[in-house]
Amino acid sequence: MRFLDRPHHDGSALYVSTPAPEPGRPVTLWLRAPRAAGVTGVHVRAVHDGEPRYARAAPDPERTGRPVAGYGRSDAWWRAEVTPVNLVTRYRFLLETTGGQAWLTAAGLFAHDLPDSGDFRLVCHDPPPDWMADSIVYQIFPDRFARSGPMPDLPPWALPRDWDRDPVIPSGPGAARQFYGGDLDGVVRHLDHVESLGADTVYLTPVFPARSNHRYDAASFEHADPLLGGDAALRRLSDALHARRMRLIGDLTANHTGDAHPWFTAAVSDAAAPERDMYLFDPVTGDYAAWWGVKTLPKLNWGSPLVRARLPEVITRWTGTFDGWRVDVANMTGRSGLDDHNHEAAALLRRALPPDAAFVAEHNHDASGDLDRDGWHGTMNYAGFTRPVWAWLRGDDLGLDHFLGVPGAVPRRDGLATLATLRSFASHLSWRSLVHSWQPLDSHDTPRIRTVTGSRERHLVALGLQATLPGTPMVFAGSEFGLTGVNGEHSRTPMPWHRPADRDPATLAAHRELLGLRRREPALRRGGLRWLHADADCLVFARETYEETLLVCARRAPGVTPAPPAGAEPVHGDPPDHPPNPPNPSNPPNRLKGAEPSLTVWRLVN
Amino acid sequence: MRFLDRPHHDGSALYVSTPAPEPGRPVTLWLRAPRAAGVTGVHVRAVHDGEPRYARAAPDPERTGRPVAGYGRSDAWWRAEVTPVNLVTRYRFLLETTGGQAWLTAAGLFAHDLPDSGDFRLVCHDPPPDWMADSIVYQIFPDRFARSGPMPDLPPWALPRDWDRDPVIPSGPGAARQFYGGDLDGVVRHLDHVESLGADTVYLTPVFPARSNHRYDAASFEHADPLLGGDAALRRLSDALHARRMRLIGDLTANHTGDAHPWFTAAVSDAAAPERDMYLFDPVTGDYAAWWGVKTLPKLNWGSPLVRARLPEVITRWTGTFDGWRVDVANMTGRSGLDDHNHEAAALLRRALPPDAAFVAEHNHDASGDLDRDGWHGTMNYAGFTRPVWAWLRGDDLGLDHFLGVPGAVPRRDGLATLATLRSFASHLSWRSLVHSWQPLDSHDTPRIRTVTGSRERHLVALGLQATLPGTPMVFAGSEFGLTGVNGEHSRTPMPWHRPADRDPATLAAHRELLGLRRREPALRRGGLRWLHADADCLVFARETYEETLLVCARRAPGVTPAPPAGAEPVHGDPPDHPPNPPNPSNPPNRLKGAEPSLTVWRLVN
Repeated sequence: MRFLDRPHHDGSALYVSTPAPEPGRPVTLWLRAPRAAGVTGVHVRAVHDGEPRYARAAPDPERTGRPVAGYGRSDAWWRAEVTPVNLVTRYRFLLETTGGQAWLTAAGLFAHDLPDSGDFRLVCHDPPPDWMADSIVYQIFPDRFARSGPMPDLPPWALPRDWDRDPVIPSGPGAARQFYGGDLDGVVRHLDHVESLGADTVYLTPVFPARSNHRYDAASFEHADPLLGGDAALRRLSDALHARRMRLIGDLTANHTGDAHPWFTAAVSDAAAPERDMYLFDPVTGDYAAWWGVKTLPKLNWGSPLVRARLPEVITRWTGTFDGWRVDVANMTGRSGLDDHNHEAAALLRRALPPDAAFVAEHNHDASGDLDRDGWHGTMNYAGFTRPVWAWLRGDDLGLDHFLGVPGAVPRRDGLATLATLRSFASHLSWRSLVHSWQPLDSHDTPRIRTVTGSRERHLVALGLQATLPGTPMVFAGSEFGLTGVNGEHSRTPMPWHRPADRDPATLAAHRELLGLRRREPALRRGGLRWLHADADCLVFARETYEETLLVCARRAPGVTPAPPAGAEPVHGDPPDHPPNPPNPSNPPNRLKGAEPSLTVWRLVN
Repeated sequence: MRFLDRPHHDGSALYVSTPAPEPGRPVTLWLRAPRAAGVTGVHVRAVHDGEPRYARAAPDPERTGRPVAGYGRSDAWWRAEVTPVNLVTRYRFLLETTGGQAWLTAAGLFAHDLPDSGDFRLVCHDPPPDWMADSIVYQIFPDRFARSGPMPDLPPWALPRDWDRDPVIPSGPGAARQFYGGDLDGVVRHLDHVESLGADTVYLTPVFPARSNHRYDAASFEHADPLLGGDAALRRLSDALHARRMRLIGDLTANHTGDAHPWFTAAVSDAAAPERDMYLFDPVTGDYAAWWGVKTLPKLNWGSPLVRARLPEVITRWTGTFDGWRVDVANMTGRSGLDDHNHEAAALLRRALPPDAAFVAEHNHDASGDLDRDGWHGTMNYAGFTRPVWAWLRGDDLGLDHFLGVPGAVPRRDGLATLATLRSFASHLSWRSLVHSWQPLDSHDTPRIRTVTGSRERHLVALGLQATLPGTPMVFAGSEFGLTGVNGEHSRTPMPWHRPADRDPATLAAHRELLGLRRREPALRRGGLRWLHADADCLVFARETYEETLLVCARRAPGVTPAPPAGAEPVHGDPPDHPPNPPNPSNPPNRLKGAEPSLTVWRLVN
């Protein structure tokens, strides 16, 4: 399969004149068309007050035939102006080609009509904070990251565990009660490590008092858990990060509280309490709705004015300490039967945030209906990143019995199916919602990527994709050491600070190198994405700015790979067996034998 | 290409236990799986308060191995229960097969993950009236259908034209002013003709007074235009239709009025008038918004309480006369810049309708975001039906220079591209929104299908698809005679009641036969749709109820066609050259040489 001859557009700065369109202000859109694509005319179709309108694109002499974004120097460039009038404008290109009419949408090139779900989007809602596009997130589950002192006095529910000797209980009643005693000052002590990876943003799973080690059953949103060091320790952590010009992201349960939360205890003990309306009590039975029916997690009623007032107050209270929030089960928040307050909840919470704060929604299937609005800036992109990467790079003897909630084993997919998944999910989001989404290889809710891939080599290919594709890399603490885990509980491994044998130095070094590469290379953070080649075992794509192209070739098995053009400079990975060939767009590219599994990056400067 | 081995589900009664699901009530879903598909397990994934949940399907012994829906008697059947909790529940099937995991959605079978936009849907909003699924619509443009007496006294704007001698002015200033004088009593006189076609529903383009022959510039919603015979004539037409157990559908402009409408004249002449707020005046310049900038069509402001009160009153006023409405430019209605009141407008208007009234939205690209709510029952399916049929069956020497608003000529697509278009648009709607949408081959806004196809033979294949695919056939008056027209204006041909040479008897006979077939065959109106085969020149599908299958084979050119199984009884079209072969699912079906172009229908009874 070759993608080199395909016309291309995406939402990056190379193709769209502004990342923050405004109604009534013209936006310039560019399209590049390799000569072989035979494009003879281009129109942009943009929807305006519900009606498609067409603008004819013109050849752009400033770009055509010039060295723009190295790979494809002889490409023709077209430009058109579109003036968005609505908050979200869907658009696509109508191409007249020597082979007939075709549509170019974010989902690809189509020689038939199709609905708008995969169209490109211009979003005029307030943009996400600019820093998010550059960030690399490091996720910490506080109970398992580091303990700054002796184990604190534990409440009766907690089962004390020895940090280095007691294995994690992977399921059953002990799972949520086992307590290793990691705390916030423990995080402070290891910020050199975090920073050494290239991460600039720490995402902490909940720090509010609760009756579990995961703390998703908040008993308060007023204070940090004293078992973690309390408000003062949280302040120390936030200050220490800010002193390093790093950021701290909190984790908010907006869908539910714990049943020990005073709002709930008031509500459950007195049907006349004002807090009664904050939850979803059945007026007849007195029963209440709860997350997946788990009665310790009573679901909040976003139809209630008190919820609409108090949850934004939580955000306001912690402004200055946290630089944004990841919102737990954002996909379920505010949704209950005939009522869907999800968008209102997201918008209310976002309005409580300062403009430079991040706001990321947990979502485990298709978040596209909830993004590109005035709420969440992005999602945790399990569906559009984690799953396809797992399915391409999974190990041969993988015993996992579900796939992030999908029944059955992790499927084995080839590179074409992987590309189809990456592309179809990306096509349902604006470019900016994609770029501002977090892309985990694993998390506290999943098996570890090392377990999924079953090998260091494939793990590092996965890491390479995370470091080079659009979207914010999110590394779950411990995976940089190659730790393993068969499910979310089991993956919450106490960090092996005192167990050097449990730390794989090659994996750690690869994290520093690949995430460091992302930090150094603007094209990897903000460049466009052009797919160039896919086969069962190989994916090749370009990340492009106006000035340069980074070519990325990921392999999961031995085989031959299209060779980059002459002048390509290797910037990561082993150089291939044969020297690059002279570029000649009229011939198929020559091929290189690739090592397995591997990720190679070349730079093409204009 | 063969589809015979594909597992199948759709939203029809064969596969879903109720057409009107309700929150909290279990719904049974069935899936059929040909043996060759190697299905070993089935889960249903249904989204519940924003979260996917999985229900395991079980083999259904009542159907497996039994003669259900003839084609595929050895298929295995699976059943599962899903209880919708939200107003719209998206669902899909996860298949475990001998070839790995796959998803079955309304868009097809996929061996990779994909977003939810093509998922099946259970819709718990109030269902459309049951009669709509059986209806066949005949569209009448009143000025051109029939005149009951001499030309009336004309207002100054009107250019009188001779019915049989003056050709229609296809563009320019005379297009909207040319006046042939058709009236409502003229329609009454030709109801035998309408009924003889199989149509049971007359859709009249606007009948309100205006200053154009098309009357989309309403000067009142209070009375029928005296030039058409006024309220009394409209009453006579409605009564005459109802006496035949037929229905009458009106045409409402909810997006704009004419500039002669008293609401607008009040608004434009006095900035302090209460009606000022009904339109979109710029507070600084005093200019007002209008449909595509045409100042005679001032756009209504659906943010205005007066619009929200008065437009529903129009519907109420005409209840009893009209049995429903087609809403003009429904896609633009209520949409203006930062305001999007489209869904509120649709819901307010629908609530003004009696429950047995039809409510169909004009939409010219992708209506899926506006359907499956509490507003429109369906759309005029230009995007998902008219365009793909045109692109497949267009004539060789077609001079048309745009494709229903898309720049460029009508593209020429093969059967695979046509199927991809039909399927991708259908996948973005619930089954019931598809079935209750109108499927025109042409209309007063388009070239005539005879002109597009360039031949009677291809026209009749298009008609056959209209008569046999899911969705309500809508015939534009005159196309049953094979009339021609190169654009919307030009297609508004005065009916050739007195010009027998302009009426093609074979085309008329085919309408009676094919639409009559649809009226007789429940499977064509309410059966499921299973695609069985597609190649460049041939489309084969099954329409299925529990009791029987109708097999439809459409050809646009000579070639060979998969043969139906033994026992298949031809019910339309010339029987093929060779006798049917014995059914043997383990061998590819034998093939028949097909006549060109042709549409053949066979029945398979259990």
